Amino acid sequence: MHIVQPGMEIDVLKENSKVAQQNFRNFKEHKVKSIDFMGSIGAGKTALIIKIAEKLRAKGVRVCAIAGDVTGVDDYSRFEKSGLKAFNCNTGHECHLDANLVRKSLNEIDLDDYDVVLIENVGNLVCPADFPLGTDYRVVVISTTEGDDMVRKHHDIFLHSDIAILNKMDIADAVGVDPEVIVQDYNRLTGGLKSIYKCSVRKDEGIDEIMSALKL
Amino acid sequence: MHIVQPGMEIDVLKENSKVAQQNFRNFKEHKVKSIDFMGSIGAGKTALIIKIAEKLRAKGVRVCAIAGDVTGVDDYSRFEKSGLKAFNCNTGHECHLDANLVRKSLNEIDLDDYDVVLIENVGNLVCPADFPLGTDYRVVVISTTEGDDMVRKHHDIFLHSDIAILNKMDIADAVGVDPEVIVQDYNRLTGGLKSIYKCSVRKDEGIDEIMSALKL
Repeated sequence: MHIVQPGMEIDVLKENSKVAQQNFRNFKEHKVKSIDFMGSIGAGKTALIIKIAEKLRAKGVRVCAIAGDVTGVDDYSRFEKSGLKAFNCNTGHECHLDANLVRKSLNEIDLDDYDVVLIENVGNLVCPADFPLGTDYRVVVISTTEGDDMVRKHHDIFLHSDIAILNKMDIADAVGVDPEVIVQDYNRLTGGLKSIYKCSVRKDEGIDEIMSALKL
Repeated sequence: MHIVQPGMEIDVLKENSKVAQQNFRNFKEHKVKSIDFMGSIGAGKTALIIKIAEKLRAKGVRVCAIAGDVTGVDDYSRFEKSGLKAFNCNTGHECHLDANLVRKSLNEIDLDDYDVVLIENVGNLVCPADFPLGTDYRVVVISTTEGDDMVRKHHDIFLHSDIAILNKMDIADAVGVDPEVIVQDYNRLTGGLKSIYKCSVRKDEGIDEIMSALKL
């Protein structure tokens, strides 16, 4: 994140943390499960959320999505097109969602209508790490096309999330990436206390394991 | 970027701009060309810089790289392994290089030894846009694996860079992305005043056109 002045960063994070706790209580009061999907652009967050939502709806679970983006309605439109009720949340300029933006989105949503809210964060592997939104789980989605070094380069987001998802396993060979390097780096970084799940959203492989890890 | 307080953001950007101008003068005094490569993680910035540097060295041009990353030495090591002299520049926590970090790196570099300095920014399609480093050119590198919507989602970085490069053309079909959508969005956003160059670093296709656009 941008450190502007010593002390100032801490104030921002403290304020975010306070609002995140309000969001968390708001979700809980309405018995809603919530998940924050973080990760770089192109990791497959939108497609993964659509896939998980399909599986949830097939089980009769009421689900909606919050589409976080700097600008535009692309992810929002993809959600709606897939049949998933979505709420658009543009940051305007900011490189990440924060708890206050989510609080504003929640003003639009009647939480009594939903059991699960899936939040797609802005495509960015750095900044979202610092800003918890008040969800039950924080998930980081990476893909094999990003190379085998992203865990070594971006400690924070892997340390601040509950689980990691390695997507696009189906093209790992085509892009010349060895997924085991990523898995080993992840296990070393997290001391084996957290899990990384391999999947291919496009081939519908590994999604059930992810849902089970997220208690969905 | 993180807007902390009204007014505060402007101070930070002003200060950055001042130091960027110092860097620019420093480069010019030593007759050094400099280029800032921005883009998401996995776009292929490191591979592109290595490829350009190879071609420059083959022409007898003296070139070095500054490897910008939040943490670690992965890109630095890849540069050095390829025979490209590199200087590592870790931001520690920040999601982008800024002019001051580059100024510090330049203290380590004897600019009389080089004709060209290639700077790899942190893998991030959002924040680097706000922080010019004082280079001759700012380039944004994107790849087909990131989907066809990144221009629509990330106006700032395309508007703040001089040219755009669309890498991984060789796997556009495999990932189901139509490059023409990206090109059209780019041309619409920039009013046709800037150019986007398609390439495949892996196949060594389109690199000469990029170098010519950057007057290398």
